[in-house]
Amino acid sequence: MPELVAKPYRWRARIRFVDTDASQRIHYTAMFRHFEAAEHDFLDSIGCPYTHPDFREVSFPRVHVECDFFSEIRYDDVIEIELTVDRVGTSSFTMQFSTSVGGRSAAKGRITVVCIDRHTQRSCPIPDRLAGCLREHLA
Amino acid sequence: MPELVAKPYRWRARIRFVDTDASQRIHYTAMFRHFEAAEHDFLDSIGCPYTHPDFREVSFPRVHVECDFFSEIRYDDVIEIELTVDRVGTSSFTMQFSTSVGGRSAAKGRITVVCIDRHTQRSCPIPDRLAGCLREHLA
Amino acid sequence: MPELVAKPYRWRARIRFVDTDASQRIHYTAMFRHFEAAEHDFLDSIGCPYTHPDFREVSFPRVHVECDFFSEIRYDDVIEIELTVDRVGTSSFTMQFSTSVGGRSAAKGRITVVCIDRHTQRSCPIPDRLAGCLREHLA
Amino acid sequence: MPELVAKPYRWRARIRFVDTDASQRIHYTAMFRHFEAAEHDFLDSIGCPYTHPDFREVSFPRVHVECDFFSEIRYDDVIEIELTVDRVGTSSFTMQFSTSVGGRSAAKGRITVVCIDRHTQRSCPIPDRLAGCLREHLA
Repeated sequence: MPELVAKPYRWRARIRFVDTDASQRIHYTAMFRHFEAAEHDFLDSIGCPYTHPDFREVSFPRVHVECDFFSEIRYDDVIEIELTVDRVGTSSFTMQFSTSVGGRSAAKGRITVVCIDRHTQRSCPIPDRLAGCLREHLA
Repeated sequence: MPELVAKPYRWRARIRFVDTDASQRIHYTAMFRHFEAAEHDFLDSIGCPYTHPDFREVSFPRVHVECDFFSEIRYDDVIEIELTVDRVGTSSFTMQFSTSVGGRSAAKGRITVVCIDRHTQRSCPIPDRLAGCLREHLA
Repeated sequence: MPELVAKPYRWRARIRFVDTDASQRIHYTAMFRHFEAAEHDFLDSIGCPYTHPDFREVSFPRVHVECDFFSEIRYDDVIEIELTVDRVGTSSFTMQFSTSVGGRSAAKGRITVVCIDRHTQRSCPIPDRLAGCLREHLA
Repeated sequence: MPELVAKPYRWRARIRFVDTDASQRIHYTAMFRHFEAAEHDFLDSIGCPYTHPDFREVSFPRVHVECDFFSEIRYDDVIEIELTVDRVGTSSFTMQFSTSVGGRSAAKGRITVVCIDRHTQRSCPIPDRLAGCLREHLA
């Protein structure tokens, strides 16, 4: 029952050693790892995991990823990510990830995923089930 | 002798297992790891490694990172990254990374670094030596 | 109340794209990332996070890490890690991590952590609080 | 001409931000990333890259990985890895990786790879070409 999933979708994680670097702050690639985990759990929660049988012929590469960092994130910080669906196009969609630490805004990212037909290796329409789920969660 | 460094700066790497994911393509965080290695080698080549004594009081967090992906990159591909300095501001600078595989454009990234005074934890001017080196390599 | 923490300590995670490689299986470094998250959550649960004020003068580098893999782990698999304390020495301790997927044993790792005095950079006794907690959880 | 490859095979890399963690030292998973790059370049140098047509039906998962750390490795350190072939069995082989920094021994790792038939998903003999190359480089 996707309609019961909170909007925006909220996801939490704790920052580990492996997420940090010698600057004592998070390494920015670690933020993208957390965005990915949030994205997978969000899609799962709305009944649309990438492993769904309807999506078997489709792969989902990222064509644009970005993140702005506003304030430092350190070891053992608990980050909360708010995930919103920003745009649902014909063959691609964009999610936004707002990361906060203790209520303070710390980072904001955007990721655009394109649907690729595994056989032709060309872009294809977003599968109906996924497009429907994403539209219900448009910001 | 920074003036002898080629413009744009070119850097190569081979894609390893750890750079890929189950889609058989590069995982996008791996591209950022390679951008970082290219950046460090570039700064080294122009005599401005982040470990230079002049930069001891400064840290260099990234405030914006982004990448667009145009075509797939796979295991064992050799990537060539062209690094150019895009902008040198007062306290921040932006580098651009154009990745190609076998002459085909595969990705383009941009990273903005801000200089932070380690004591005040506030932004500070780019150290003179670094600003000079970067300006000589402005695209 | 550490005595209420289950023995062995159990921890779960789902395998993401970033955890896999082009072989379609988990990349082994990803297993170590999950071991680390399990370790941190375990130490937190027994009241001994590495950030505890009593441990301020100590750092905790790993001096030995190993893992055996028995069966494949794939994208979207849910892994369950059982963490047990294997050995508590004077200045080092060893944890064991048994990973299963759907009840099937998939991997077994061991990690030895040594306590280092941040000032002398030499090994030092395990802080009393931590040694006590770990001994209560010896396998 | 594999016989011209130096024994032991030597490989170098510089430690980047992404290789370190908040302890200021290398994160141990980064050492495994470097082992992998050294392994791939070694196999390439002896004419046996994993992408060789003879190995098309075989995958090469790791069944055992381990590393001991003797002294700290920090940002910007240049590591030198000596790779030796330790053991060539029927369906698996073991490589050893000795890492030094400025001539000081810093880490020693061992990785055992098993050959798996992609169709049966069972272990199979090491392909002849690879077994021959590896035997020539036995320590």
